[in-house]
Amino acid sequence: MTTETVTSPTGSTHPLSPNGALIKDIAITPVAFHDMPLLNSVGIHEPFALRTIVEIITESGTYGLGESYGDLPHLERMQRAAANIKGLEVHNTNTIYKAVVDSLATDNSTGGDGMSGMVTGTSTADKVFSPFEVACLDIQGKLAGVPVSDLLGGRVRDTVQYSAYLFYKWGGHPSEPDDEYGPALDPAGLVKQAHRIIDEYGFKAIKLKGGVFPPAQEVEAIKALRTEFPDLPLRLDPNAAWTVETSKWVAKELDGFVEYLEDPAPEIEGMAAVAKEASMPLATNMAIVSFSHLPPAIAQNAVQVVLSDHHFWGGLRKSQSLAAICATWGMRLSMHSNSHLGISLAAMTHLASATPNLDYACDTHWPWKRRDEDVVVEGALKWKDGGVVVPTAPGLGVELDRARLAKLHQQYLNCGLRKRDDTTYMRKFQPDFSSKIPKW
Amino acid sequence: MTTETVTSPTGSTHPLSPNGALIKDIAITPVAFHDMPLLNSVGIHEPFALRTIVEIITESGTYGLGESYGDLPHLERMQRAAANIKGLEVHNTNTIYKAVVDSLATDNSTGGDGMSGMVTGTSTADKVFSPFEVACLDIQGKLAGVPVSDLLGGRVRDTVQYSAYLFYKWGGHPSEPDDEYGPALDPAGLVKQAHRIIDEYGFKAIKLKGGVFPPAQEVEAIKALRTEFPDLPLRLDPNAAWTVETSKWVAKELDGFVEYLEDPAPEIEGMAAVAKEASMPLATNMAIVSFSHLPPAIAQNAVQVVLSDHHFWGGLRKSQSLAAICATWGMRLSMHSNSHLGISLAAMTHLASATPNLDYACDTHWPWKRRDEDVVVEGALKWKDGGVVVPTAPGLGVELDRARLAKLHQQYLNCGLRKRDDTTYMRKFQPDFSSKIPKW
Repeated sequence: MTTETVTSPTGSTHPLSPNGALIKDIAITPVAFHDMPLLNSVGIHEPFALRTIVEIITESGTYGLGESYGDLPHLERMQRAAANIKGLEVHNTNTIYKAVVDSLATDNSTGGDGMSGMVTGTSTADKVFSPFEVACLDIQGKLAGVPVSDLLGGRVRDTVQYSAYLFYKWGGHPSEPDDEYGPALDPAGLVKQAHRIIDEYGFKAIKLKGGVFPPAQEVEAIKALRTEFPDLPLRLDPNAAWTVETSKWVAKELDGFVEYLEDPAPEIEGMAAVAKEASMPLATNMAIVSFSHLPPAIAQNAVQVVLSDHHFWGGLRKSQSLAAICATWGMRLSMHSNSHLGISLAAMTHLASATPNLDYACDTHWPWKRRDEDVVVEGALKWKDGGVVVPTAPGLGVELDRARLAKLHQQYLNCGLRKRDDTTYMRKFQPDFSSKIPKW
Repeated sequence: MTTETVTSPTGSTHPLSPNGALIKDIAITPVAFHDMPLLNSVGIHEPFALRTIVEIITESGTYGLGESYGDLPHLERMQRAAANIKGLEVHNTNTIYKAVVDSLATDNSTGGDGMSGMVTGTSTADKVFSPFEVACLDIQGKLAGVPVSDLLGGRVRDTVQYSAYLFYKWGGHPSEPDDEYGPALDPAGLVKQAHRIIDEYGFKAIKLKGGVFPPAQEVEAIKALRTEFPDLPLRLDPNAAWTVETSKWVAKELDGFVEYLEDPAPEIEGMAAVAKEASMPLATNMAIVSFSHLPPAIAQNAVQVVLSDHHFWGGLRKSQSLAAICATWGMRLSMHSNSHLGISLAAMTHLASATPNLDYACDTHWPWKRRDEDVVVEGALKWKDGGVVVPTAPGLGVELDRARLAKLHQQYLNCGLRKRDDTTYMRKFQPDFSSKIPKW
């Protein structure tokens, strides 16, 4: 059998698949959805979280979905990449990756990490490529009649467990009434929040976003959670707000209380210094955020748990490479999250379901978004006992709700936010707030 | 959309794909094909090379092909694994891998590495799993209407380059007339052999299997090849026949003559010691042959080029994980081969085509097998300018020729060989031959 070939914008030829899955069009739509005033080491969540929805449409009319950050420089990079990807074949993600890299060659823009400065040092190419890869896999699955998990080696679990992701928070955004969760500024508030979230979702692990109050208070909060939820594994993540010495003190205080301590101190060297004395594994989504960080981090045994995130590790397949590296070097694997919508939750769930060496419940911000705000058709993603049932429909298993997408895009246009900036928002209310880390 | 689920022999449930790709039957057929008297550090190739052909048939009647070693203990392990795999879904290679591991839990057999003792320390599970994974990918590609390369991220090159793999050899097997290549026992013989092979295939790189004669003679042979083929990169592979000191001497002698030196000395520690002084990269398919070898080898910078081989690295997807590890740690990548048939050549070619960081022409024993002996339908694999044109038909792009398969199976039954043993065969003619390494 001879197959026709097609030439890509970057000059390489590749086969025109029998199913003719060439990319005809790409729609890139920034959206905004309501977020709650969640506190962290760099500030507080703004009233809206920004995301970008990527929709790839093939010549035969099949569409696939991806989701990424909404910061303007990142949005513009995705638009440039999209122009370079048109005409390529959805199965050839290697060629698409190269086209993305080529599209960034003349990119002089800075910033746009989408993570308010908390996670830096990620690969720009991997971050821009990710939603396009997910959308291509969505289409590949639809064309083959198999779920995305099957394109990744098949699911090893029927539901993917997520953790109850607790935040210190204000009762509501200033000048607005309290939101449905209300305030959580002390151990009692967090315990109440945990009960509420666990009652609704059934989570079997608890993560607390720390780095907000002095370490002793956050240690106290963890101990209160331990007393209240004696059977649930706990984690604390101060986003590198502590010095090495403070981190060692916390590690000693929390000996026996947490399944891992996440990003206590900044940088590979800081983590390595803490790891030498900490009794629990140290986890990170800040010190190791691209493949180039792995050799030095492993050489120093800086980290025992990597929190992967397909949004900045270059998509689902590259996240599988990361998983293979963790398995090879005996590091454990968990999953990081930012504020996200249903396309990301579906992608995270497929990836996690097909990753045998995923050792912990994944993080998700899902409970913090309004139930009626999303871009996917309601009902495809089912929560059950703290986990999401892995969709078995072809592709990601979620479909675009165009009315909802239009509404969230209008919200983006109206809200005026063009990048996530927790620090500037915080300073509106606390002008002397510093996002410097380490803080204690 | 709800999908029916199926329960595997090992107890997990997974979705029944819309295309119903459940494994109904698996045929495992040992075959033998004529081989030539090729010399190496452990002896000489026997008159027949053994392989096993794996054919997976789905309930809907689609079949997929895999190929592996033919040693009896390995054959029996594959048979045990096959029994545990029946009923599983071809897309769920994660579950199939687990079923393979489970099938080996009570395996007390030893040996059967398929490589005459030259490559040891491979993962038994990875080796047994490999042909099943390849066969499943073949089926996945056929069902989706895309080549296997597309299941691996898409091809980045239209042809995959192979090297001219030269061997010291006898003119023919004892008591038989000379084969078509005749003897090669000195530089002139190797130069003649190289011309013949390159004239036919157009190879653009040359590899010499060494470890046969004292190192100075093999250095002389490389220098003769350099004079005769000034533009072609050269490699020398003595299969760890040299001490560290001898290796250092050879490395100095061959400074500027070879693109890499392959397995000069045994073990990670030996390679690391040589690497400290060698000017050229050191390559291996002996010191690093499973994922567990990577951490210590990388920590010692023992090797600069890994020769991957999907037959013992656990299939095509795990070989991609190996490629990702090489890219992450700045190691280069090439590909190892044993005597093989067309299914393996197709699988190697798809894998290589979809591996962006493949840096060298791959090894193949292809020129050493008789042109009329194979198990695939003639004509699917086309050689062009030293490379194989990547098949673009769905799946591997090769079809089983059942008459040829039956003939090679009969040859297996008749030849009496049940495992590869270059050393015992050599001792029939040179009773004092030692396969001990290092030898010099």
